Amino acid sequence: MGPRSLSLVSLCLLSASCGGGKPWGGASDALFQVSIIDALLAGDYDGVATLSEVRQHGDFGLGTFDRLDGEMIVLDGTVYQVRGDGTVRVPPMSETTPYAMVTKFAVDAQWSIDRAMTMGELEAELDRRIDNPNIFHAVRIDGVIPRLELRSVNAQEKPYPDILEVAETQSTWTHENVPGTLVGFRSPAYVGTMAVSGYHWHFISDDRTLGGHVLSADVHHGLARIDAIRKWDVRLPESATFDKLDLQVDRSEDLETVERT
Amino acid sequence: MGPRSLSLVSLCLLSASCGGGKPWGGASDALFQVSIIDALLAGDYDGVATLSEVRQHGDFGLGTFDRLDGEMIVLDGTVYQVRGDGTVRVPPMSETTPYAMVTKFAVDAQWSIDRAMTMGELEAELDRRIDNPNIFHAVRIDGVIPRLELRSVNAQEKPYPDILEVAETQSTWTHENVPGTLVGFRSPAYVGTMAVSGYHWHFISDDRTLGGHVLSADVHHGLARIDAIRKWDVRLPESATFDKLDLQVDRSEDLETVERT
Repeated sequence: MGPRSLSLVSLCLLSASCGGGKPWGGASDALFQVSIIDALLAGDYDGVATLSEVRQHGDFGLGTFDRLDGEMIVLDGTVYQVRGDGTVRVPPMSETTPYAMVTKFAVDAQWSIDRAMTMGELEAELDRRIDNPNIFHAVRIDGVIPRLELRSVNAQEKPYPDILEVAETQSTWTHENVPGTLVGFRSPAYVGTMAVSGYHWHFISDDRTLGGHVLSADVHHGLARIDAIRKWDVRLPESATFDKLDLQVDRSEDLETVERT
Repeated sequence: MGPRSLSLVSLCLLSASCGGGKPWGGASDALFQVSIIDALLAGDYDGVATLSEVRQHGDFGLGTFDRLDGEMIVLDGTVYQVRGDGTVRVPPMSETTPYAMVTKFAVDAQWSIDRAMTMGELEAELDRRIDNPNIFHAVRIDGVIPRLELRSVNAQEKPYPDILEVAETQSTWTHENVPGTLVGFRSPAYVGTMAVSGYHWHFISDDRTLGGHVLSADVHHGLARIDAIRKWDVRLPESATFDKLDLQVDRSEDLETVERT
């Protein structure tokens, strides 16, 4: 399936014949987001939504947990938690998250990956095929990942340390030839300090024994699937701590440090 | 009703006992937004949502119309259109908008205004009482407005002129002692290029014969009501024109020119 097929998908979106012909009428193809990324960067790690609520709004996504207790991967409707010690578990739905993005994944286009690429090359290929920087996309890549650098973090205690201090204590792991799934979102630049603009990737292995936030990866063979999203439902925390955060500070460099290194 | 009462409202939000005790569970207290303000600044004035759809998501709000055909005021469930010639009408619900923000207004706090204030002083008073820069607020002021500077614009033809050119041809009117309603939103700074951060005011007179975007105003006596909002539902246009806009340009100065002068 090539760029031509993707154009057809765009036409489908334009004609509003997808989703029952009612633009924005259904719950499908909405990106549900708990809080904004700058609240994490400002040091508020308290969970504000239950996993049960998150799960109601999506079967695919990523995030973190109350007290930054690991990396979240939501795949095929199951929520996975990769903790700072590398263990993977399915947490009780009563546990909470301070930040997460999920959607009900519906394939708008897919194609096979059949050559070796770095993550940067994969993202350039996705850019070319998606050809639309102004809306959201969920991206799912299933395959054997030849090289993979992952990280997770440990739960923090109050008073919470600065996010840069947390990043210094993160665990990182390098793996080779792991069958699994890259779970990602591509967000428009205009989301600014509310989400990670550009690509944001988490990973979980097929056998659910390893995963985390992706610091770098190569891909070779695999299946890429994307879901174009034009509804963004942001839920701000019902929390006095959130209300008092100083969200006027430019934390873009902190974000780069925390997300990419 | 003073700041003390507003604190109680905040507690109500925190305990999630408002809205049936289910955070984010209901449709109430959501801010529904069609497109992003930077799409207008980038010159895309095509309507992308019907007024009927907008009306389904709110009874209070503001926006504009297809081809920039005037200023929109939504008040008590009626959509009003103030055109470039100053006439006010209730347009058919089949007409469309390229940008609008609406909510189902529910009073979280209210107080009487009983002294003369400029708009700047009113906004400072609102800031003090709201005491929360990190969420959205709808603000309704009913009263006799002693001085009011309004503007509207004429419908544009394709190829659409730049927004700054449109602003040069806007109509402005000054009125005194008009009974009516200021319809406003206060948005967090982090909305960036997606909405007008800070305050954004439109006005409609009690007799529905005049209104528009507020360039400046004084207030004296009146009733102020606010609605705190923690759900932001953004709907991106299902439009190939939107998809192709260059939304990476910094248009903050254009916004200032267009919204404040």
